[in-house]
Amino acid sequence: MKNETLLRVAIAQVNSTVGDLQGNAAKIIRYIEKAKDSSTDIICFPELALCGYPPEDLLLKPKFISDNVSALKNLAKAINGHVVAVVGFADGRFKETYNAAAIIYNGQIKGVYRKIFLPNYGVFDEKRYFDSGDKSLVFGLGDFIFGVNICEDIWYPDGPTKSQAAAGAKLILNINASPYHADKFKERQAAIASQAKANSVFVVYANLIGGQDELVFDGQSMIVDNQGKLLTKAKAFTEDLLIQDLDIPVSRIRPSKKLIKIASTLSSPKKNLVIREEPETLESEAEIYQGLVLGLKDYVFKNGFGKVVLGLSGGIDSSLVAALAVDALGNENVAGLFMPSRYTCRQSQEDAMLLAKNLGIKFIAISIEQIFRLYLLVLEPHFAGLGRDTTEENLQARIRGNILMAFSNKFGWLVLTTGNKSEMSTGYATLYGDMAGGLAVIKDVPKTLVYKLSRYRNSISQVIPECVFTKAPTAELKPNQLDQDTLPPYEILDNILKAYVEEDKDLTKIISSGFDKEIVCKVTDMVDKNEYKRRQSPPGIKITPKAFGRDRRMPITNKYKG
Amino acid sequence: MKNETLLRVAIAQVNSTVGDLQGNAAKIIRYIEKAKDSSTDIICFPELALCGYPPEDLLLKPKFISDNVSALKNLAKAINGHVVAVVGFADGRFKETYNAAAIIYNGQIKGVYRKIFLPNYGVFDEKRYFDSGDKSLVFGLGDFIFGVNICEDIWYPDGPTKSQAAAGAKLILNINASPYHADKFKERQAAIASQAKANSVFVVYANLIGGQDELVFDGQSMIVDNQGKLLTKAKAFTEDLLIQDLDIPVSRIRPSKKLIKIASTLSSPKKNLVIREEPETLESEAEIYQGLVLGLKDYVFKNGFGKVVLGLSGGIDSSLVAALAVDALGNENVAGLFMPSRYTCRQSQEDAMLLAKNLGIKFIAISIEQIFRLYLLVLEPHFAGLGRDTTEENLQARIRGNILMAFSNKFGWLVLTTGNKSEMSTGYATLYGDMAGGLAVIKDVPKTLVYKLSRYRNSISQVIPECVFTKAPTAELKPNQLDQDTLPPYEILDNILKAYVEEDKDLTKIISSGFDKEIVCKVTDMVDKNEYKRRQSPPGIKITPKAFGRDRRMPITNKYKG
Repeated sequence: MKNETLLRVAIAQVNSTVGDLQGNAAKIIRYIEKAKDSSTDIICFPELALCGYPPEDLLLKPKFISDNVSALKNLAKAINGHVVAVVGFADGRFKETYNAAAIIYNGQIKGVYRKIFLPNYGVFDEKRYFDSGDKSLVFGLGDFIFGVNICEDIWYPDGPTKSQAAAGAKLILNINASPYHADKFKERQAAIASQAKANSVFVVYANLIGGQDELVFDGQSMIVDNQGKLLTKAKAFTEDLLIQDLDIPVSRIRPSKKLIKIASTLSSPKKNLVIREEPETLESEAEIYQGLVLGLKDYVFKNGFGKVVLGLSGGIDSSLVAALAVDALGNENVAGLFMPSRYTCRQSQEDAMLLAKNLGIKFIAISIEQIFRLYLLVLEPHFAGLGRDTTEENLQARIRGNILMAFSNKFGWLVLTTGNKSEMSTGYATLYGDMAGGLAVIKDVPKTLVYKLSRYRNSISQVIPECVFTKAPTAELKPNQLDQDTLPPYEILDNILKAYVEEDKDLTKIISSGFDKEIVCKVTDMVDKNEYKRRQSPPGIKITPKAFGRDRRMPITNKYKG
Repeated sequence: MKNETLLRVAIAQVNSTVGDLQGNAAKIIRYIEKAKDSSTDIICFPELALCGYPPEDLLLKPKFISDNVSALKNLAKAINGHVVAVVGFADGRFKETYNAAAIIYNGQIKGVYRKIFLPNYGVFDEKRYFDSGDKSLVFGLGDFIFGVNICEDIWYPDGPTKSQAAAGAKLILNINASPYHADKFKERQAAIASQAKANSVFVVYANLIGGQDELVFDGQSMIVDNQGKLLTKAKAFTEDLLIQDLDIPVSRIRPSKKLIKIASTLSSPKKNLVIREEPETLESEAEIYQGLVLGLKDYVFKNGFGKVVLGLSGGIDSSLVAALAVDALGNENVAGLFMPSRYTCRQSQEDAMLLAKNLGIKFIAISIEQIFRLYLLVLEPHFAGLGRDTTEENLQARIRGNILMAFSNKFGWLVLTTGNKSEMSTGYATLYGDMAGGLAVIKDVPKTLVYKLSRYRNSISQVIPECVFTKAPTAELKPNQLDQDTLPPYEILDNILKAYVEEDKDLTKIISSGFDKEIVCKVTDMVDKNEYKRRQSPPGIKITPKAFGRDRRMPITNKYKG
């Protein structure tokens, strides 16, 4: 059956900022005006678009909730004309708090849907904050009936989508704040398609974009038809207004008594919609790279910084972070500090300098040798008779940390740390040394992936010197030191770490999947023993299914081995 | 009605270690044997006594759950004779995980109660880990019928206590892992008494003791009668085996069909119970002081350290932390580093030395002046034309941090940081400087309470020099610096912080309760802006209703003002 009129829907995939109620509201209004210009019937915004996601313990402040509700009321008043807007906000009723979506039309809040299924795993703590809704609302616009629900509500076969379909809805607007990890789009698409098909409904899936502390949201909003077929998709990691005409069947069942009638006609007359090209599907490395760029950019700018500084060692990690920073902030906003010691080889200096030159960033060289020597002298009487050990290695890293922080304090530059996930897992890093900084950009990127991302970046333009890829990784904190003196080869290490850290596999299982017992025991022991370091590390950007930080909450005091 | 035989119950208020299944099981067996020697009928252990509390994301490891279940089975086999043991453990069934209590008798697990009400606020994340139980089991021992439930299960008027009482239970064994904050015993007692009375049941309330990262458990287990009267109470902050004979009425209603019969007689013959003296009720400061001592001691020893080192400035904070460390670990295990700069006055040195002498701890003096001067020299060309600011202040703190960490690395001593809650709230501390260390002992202690606790400690023996109390607090990082140049007077500051941080009050409310608007705005702004520092601070011991850390999860990126 062909409808006389198509329904024009829009997804405004916005980048909200946590807590910026006024700023977010202004942005929402701008997108609604834009959608109205295109005669859109319905526009939807992501989950908690009004207050940003996740607001965490701000939600425990009664004033924050009442400010949310006031901001929503003001927003509703500012919207007029023939467009329905679905806006995520934190709703407070009596002593209860809900993760909610307001359905707004012509200055009025026509209904509020309250999220039913609250995720409370991984990075999510929604049961800490929210009460569960219990109503599966449906709305009528012209002859079309649609339902609204939020995020995981749509995953459950017996959830609101089913009741909304039973009440006549042929379209579900599902609003989300789904954090990124590599290849997550496919997981979402499969879940949405299966529910669309099962309930014979079109689904408009709106997702947030932007960085928020440890999380980055990738957008990639989508629309699937009632057969589960993907109709269109929004861009990744950038704000987007996706407008689509949908040929949705009119419900032939009698609509539920609970139907809320919004308007009797659609927006008209409609101009023809310019069909835009689908955004290209990103290759895995490109997608992760863009995610890191956005996470970095938003952390820096949303926290009021303009420039960043990082230590350049001539190694692959700091090279990648420098490239990410330039791509996120522009080369004029990035400074690299090269801080050689007696153990720094000439090649490191050449590589660091060439990288800085290729990227066009400020390059500052400060030797730590004199300061290091003085520390040794001052400590000598206290350490008499004792040999050199990690103490002296850590001292060098900490002198570098101090110098970076001095530049940060003096010029207001944010320090980026350059440690990767393999180091962060095993504690192969110095607390208050190379771990010192405001954002640990590649904290969730295993070393083997660091190489791949660097190759990807060089495929766009050659910025990281070739030698950086081929030389053996070293911390250069003692003579002839190599990472592989302390750690197993990274190809092996990263696979063991994935099994242990991300998949919670036990030692027996990991060993039986083909790894050397001694190596597995050594690696997992390092992971367990270094929880205290990770607890004091800066936030990093999550790009795997399980990152350190809110995502993985291990006790420091812990005698369990397994 | 007087029973022919009294029921002899015991509470084993143990100090479990998270993850130490074997060690905890061995301890549980030792206490059961001890209780048997006293002809105890029922002995109960705290919540999750077998695996320690909270095990956090260890609970997401399937092997950890199966190891828990195996350890419980082995434990049950090891228990024989006429005693019922109630042991908290993590139970796994199919894909579900429960916070559970096993009821063990004569080598057999007679029943498993699964916690129904799961706390998911404050420091608690139980909905992240556990499924909810749905059975309110009751058990028969001789003529006595009792119910078992866990922690918050007993708070709810319509919870399992009511159903268990309805099923004939005259006694509820309620097992807990209730973290300490000041004066919490009174809150618990009121809640338990009210439910005991409402349901006309005796309640045996067993609580954990011990330190676990940010938490310390105070024990203070108790038994109340069916009128809500407190019969007896276990010690605070120490392991205890509390044994009590209870004159419990025999149920006159027909027991529920669901009753699990454990044994037809009680343990006998009973020797007379030696009635022991009630532990003294601690004054508020004494209680908090003991909590900090236990939290510190357990963090150090459970993590495999023997000795600690801290910076002594001659100020009140480091003096208190040194005293706490000596009381927790013994003076032979504490070293104080005095690290003067050009800004350190003679009085500071005298006070630090006298404190160290009074406490009998190792005292090491290392001037940071030369190193500081060299940093300034090295940075001079880069900072040319710019005035002195916090950069140079932070540098001094970071040099001290480096030296402390060098001692930690070289000798394996754990570094204690000495910052208080007032500083941690406002960011009046240097990241990687005085914030560097493994445990922030007084991180949850406001400055005004630091003085009170120090006075309390001196009331036992005079260890902190009098001058430390009377001189004005200063960081001594620039000439003539006083805390009060940057912060409002601590009496005012601490009250504003309590309202904003602990009570989530908004600015308007705080101002209207009698504080200067400008000061309130300045203080709350400092709190908001320094979230990034707190995120990288070491764990501290929670002693207030809301501590930093797991207890308060604020976003770093946050534009909300209110």
